[in-house]
Amino acid sequence: MDELAKIIHTDNIRLSGDGRSVVILDQTQLPNRVVYLTLSREEDCYEAILKLRVRGAPAIGIFAGYAMYVLAQQYAHLPYDAFAAEFHRQREYLNASRPTAVNLNWALARMEQVVTDGAGQPAAEILDRLRAECTAIHQEDISMCTRIAEYGLTLVKDGDGILTHCNAGPLATSRYGTALGPILLGKERGMEFRVFADETRPLLQGARLTSFELQKAGVDVTLICDNMASIVMKNGWVQACFVGCDRIAANGDFANKIGTSGVAILAKHYGIPFYTLGPTSTIDMACPDGDHIPVEQRDPGEIREKFYAEPMALQEVKCYNPAFDVTDHTLLTAIVTEKGICYPPFTESLKKLFE
Amino acid sequence: MDELAKIIHTDNIRLSGDGRSVVILDQTQLPNRVVYLTLSREEDCYEAILKLRVRGAPAIGIFAGYAMYVLAQQYAHLPYDAFAAEFHRQREYLNASRPTAVNLNWALARMEQVVTDGAGQPAAEILDRLRAECTAIHQEDISMCTRIAEYGLTLVKDGDGILTHCNAGPLATSRYGTALGPILLGKERGMEFRVFADETRPLLQGARLTSFELQKAGVDVTLICDNMASIVMKNGWVQACFVGCDRIAANGDFANKIGTSGVAILAKHYGIPFYTLGPTSTIDMACPDGDHIPVEQRDPGEIREKFYAEPMALQEVKCYNPAFDVTDHTLLTAIVTEKGICYPPFTESLKKLFE
Repeated sequence: MDELAKIIHTDNIRLSGDGRSVVILDQTQLPNRVVYLTLSREEDCYEAILKLRVRGAPAIGIFAGYAMYVLAQQYAHLPYDAFAAEFHRQREYLNASRPTAVNLNWALARMEQVVTDGAGQPAAEILDRLRAECTAIHQEDISMCTRIAEYGLTLVKDGDGILTHCNAGPLATSRYGTALGPILLGKERGMEFRVFADETRPLLQGARLTSFELQKAGVDVTLICDNMASIVMKNGWVQACFVGCDRIAANGDFANKIGTSGVAILAKHYGIPFYTLGPTSTIDMACPDGDHIPVEQRDPGEIREKFYAEPMALQEVKCYNPAFDVTDHTLLTAIVTEKGICYPPFTESLKKLFE
Repeated sequence: MDELAKIIHTDNIRLSGDGRSVVILDQTQLPNRVVYLTLSREEDCYEAILKLRVRGAPAIGIFAGYAMYVLAQQYAHLPYDAFAAEFHRQREYLNASRPTAVNLNWALARMEQVVTDGAGQPAAEILDRLRAECTAIHQEDISMCTRIAEYGLTLVKDGDGILTHCNAGPLATSRYGTALGPILLGKERGMEFRVFADETRPLLQGARLTSFELQKAGVDVTLICDNMASIVMKNGWVQACFVGCDRIAANGDFANKIGTSGVAILAKHYGIPFYTLGPTSTIDMACPDGDHIPVEQRDPGEIREKFYAEPMALQEVKCYNPAFDVTDHTLLTAIVTEKGICYPPFTESLKKLFE
């Protein structure tokens, strides 16, 4: 496989050969080390999400599905009621690892539905169906990402400059990714884009992951600090912004990596179209607007100390460290899903997706 | 002296006791080490500016004045013409260290004027006048900063939230600083502000210097990543933005630390007043607009590797690393100088300052 194909077609989340563990590429080690982790304990699965070893809303969903199947095998000998209770407890446990992305809860709910539907069936059969379900979640994501990439590609033309924030590529999803999907699919077809990747403080997913994925795939990528997006746009180098999403409310407000709302405001100021790309599993129709999306607050040490050879601020300095922000739907040109492109008014166009 | 007074009233740039060296606090070592450097060679003075050991437009001007005096003593035995030629060469040399801030050239020009005016005078007399001039540049800066702080303080009220970008405090200037001046002067008078300091990638002057200065001064400061400014504003926590400036064009466009233009666009979006504060020496009436301000490009390694325990992006990833950006005057509520507050239209209000 050439590098482009390797980036796009390698599964960075998968079951181990014996099906008793889930294997992930540890994203916290990139770009310096390619390390795979083999996980089969609930605490390790929780920690992998919490510490962003596996991250990206769709990837977390895929991982959670596999993890529930792996864990369920360990107590499949229990009577059904005890089995279902334990499954429910673990679902709640994993769901508490990160609150903002809806895909985690969505995947966990799909898995638990299998258990609920399996009442009265033999344990072996329930396990088989759980395996089928988590495999389906993964396969569906691959298919969704491909369709999102196809739809996204219709929004740009060969040679365009594209700015992206955080990482919504193959590492965060499966195969093509969401926000990076059109870029990678276009590359496969011989198109060239000029991509600007925000480094995305504090955890630097843009530097560590996006610029890594695109560079390896042979895409023309330029890494910038988050505060350089304004001048890059002012220079006329950006024809479209593509970002991922962690939860989309019914009115089109959406949560994504901290800083996304700022990029959207800049894009509006400079008259540049701004798109979010994600599977319909990211849309939470039960959530009326952005005010109802919980935003995860993270450790201040991620700002003051993490990654650095020595601290970059006094230990006693307060830090505000939200992991996400909510972008107002009025700043959004369109939402690209596997079922098509939604334009404003989003309250109507999103509803149509589910009809 | 209490900590507040120590922050405000300590001179971080000064002549050594014998007047043969210039002593600076090495800003690159903060917040982990307080290290003073004693400089008397032209290469070391150049390097101190280039490497941001001394930084902040007014501080660079003060330093350059002292440096020229220190260096001039070393060739004062030369005949006048040779002395003047050497002085001119060193002026050009130091002026090339950083291109964007106008104060450097402004201070160097003041020093060279002393030499030009001294034609026919004894060397000892020229040296005395050079010493008086660089001391005057420093003293005037102290006085200017105090007046800027007074004017700036009229724009906010007790309890306000203030967002700042980069560092325009005592370290970058003298005494109160420019953008931080109203905050520190207000603190001396018993007022309390809630300050949000952008960390200011890639060189983290906000984390390393601004949050350091304000924390030590007892000001309520919260450190944020640059990409969090949008959400902090959306939360309603910011009543005014105060930033410094490196060069103000005749139409009010101004260069300041990279990211400033983004903060200005966010402030406009959220309806928050946005001010730049600086001495009139920062205004370049010969520069018609922002397109004529040269913007310094710096080493990509500052984005990929600097400060980190290990690289955060692949070595081969391209980086775009401008040190400054230009904020359009249409985004600016007012320019605060030591001579008063200029409101739009800036072409007229700035011109009046010099009448």
